[in-house]
Amino acid sequence: MLLKGERIDQLFANDIQIIQSKEVFSFSIDAVLLANFPAYPKKGKIVDLCAGNGAVGLFASRKTNAHITQIELQERLADMGRRSIQLNHLEEQMTMLELDLKLATTAVKPDSVDLVLCNPPYFKELPTSQKNPNPHLAIARHEIYTTLTEVIEVSAKLLKTNGRLAMVHRPDRFLDILHAMESADVAPKRVRFIYPKAGKEANTLLIEGIKQGKKEGFRVLPPLFTYDDQNNYLPEVKAMLYGN
Amino acid sequence: MLLKGERIDQLFANDIQIIQSKEVFSFSIDAVLLANFPAYPKKGKIVDLCAGNGAVGLFASRKTNAHITQIELQERLADMGRRSIQLNHLEEQMTMLELDLKLATTAVKPDSVDLVLCNPPYFKELPTSQKNPNPHLAIARHEIYTTLTEVIEVSAKLLKTNGRLAMVHRPDRFLDILHAMESADVAPKRVRFIYPKAGKEANTLLIEGIKQGKKEGFRVLPPLFTYDDQNNYLPEVKAMLYGN
Repeated sequence: MLLKGERIDQLFANDIQIIQSKEVFSFSIDAVLLANFPAYPKKGKIVDLCAGNGAVGLFASRKTNAHITQIELQERLADMGRRSIQLNHLEEQMTMLELDLKLATTAVKPDSVDLVLCNPPYFKELPTSQKNPNPHLAIARHEIYTTLTEVIEVSAKLLKTNGRLAMVHRPDRFLDILHAMESADVAPKRVRFIYPKAGKEANTLLIEGIKQGKKEGFRVLPPLFTYDDQNNYLPEVKAMLYGN
Repeated sequence: MLLKGERIDQLFANDIQIIQSKEVFSFSIDAVLLANFPAYPKKGKIVDLCAGNGAVGLFASRKTNAHITQIELQERLADMGRRSIQLNHLEEQMTMLELDLKLATTAVKPDSVDLVLCNPPYFKELPTSQKNPNPHLAIARHEIYTTLTEVIEVSAKLLKTNGRLAMVHRPDRFLDILHAMESADVAPKRVRFIYPKAGKEANTLLIEGIKQGKKEGFRVLPPLFTYDDQNNYLPEVKAMLYGN
């Protein structure tokens, strides 16, 4: 079941086992934050875009009976994700597709999805970008094969009217996210800023938009702090990782 | 010196006395938050738009040697502000103009200002708006005589290249603020969200934009909480009000 360099990690909070590899892909706390962010539909369809090794969708499976389709470009990562689905006996609820998200609507019907989850590459691909020499990691982190604008356009195509897009990203891309959402007629509705600790600037944001939603009623949710002064996880984050 | 119904309040943190009136206008904590937000130029020109009874500009005077021009539409409020300038012996540094901000560039040279401070009316003027029957308060709170877009357009005209606009507003208008800034070529650069207490949504925001600034480098500053669980001001706010 495991290839060379792989290990099985466990998210204790929801009893999910996940195949990871330092050389290929391991999920970050951002995947956990994203999976805990949206209001989930009880049933229907969820798509996890830029799924990586499948962490976000796997965690989401514990919160809904909706079918979860995961879309990941990299064969190696999609394969890990597929084996994690088997490992957790989630074959009925989840499907991992190895697919360029440009082709998402060939596999998932447009205007049919209740919720899109996305933990996309964070960094702009610039001639000057310092990239990881490992291509698996570089592709996951940098906008090499897709861009923020494309990710949001594809999400908008997949979503039904009033369907929701939930995304994790960096605050320095916040204005880009808002522009891309508005261009795709996804109304930004709720944002939550994640601060590493008290007195520090936000380093992560969670944002939810509604396809063809009303423009009014933007809300800034309570802040989330990751660590205390001793660099221990604070209770809300600890509960997401280890349960209550 | 005082008219009927007026009183003199003191901001202890910076030893400013300010003429107020329950029936006409009293400054709120938002004025104090705004005055403590921007990086002040040491000299040059500052404009305080929608100045009300002058609180923001009066507090700002303690942080800079720049000349501060205050612009207020309402004669009654501008008069209170003018008397507060005298009361604090700030006639050399400050000028209060009773003026519609549409006419601001007739009194202050365009492209000449280092910093614009603005605590504008927060609420959209809609046929359905519940407004205060007191016209002084209604005009200060509702977009009756100006709008967010106009306030930002006027600010952009007054500012020199790389001059800064610092504004206090409500999070539910955040997207409107960003749109208006971008239309006026003021690049949003820093935002700070104010949360009434831990676990609550933000109810106020401070935002700074730079005229003709670079589009990159948007930052979300550390959160500010107003009250503790017992509804006492927390230390950072207390210091703004009462000093250290």
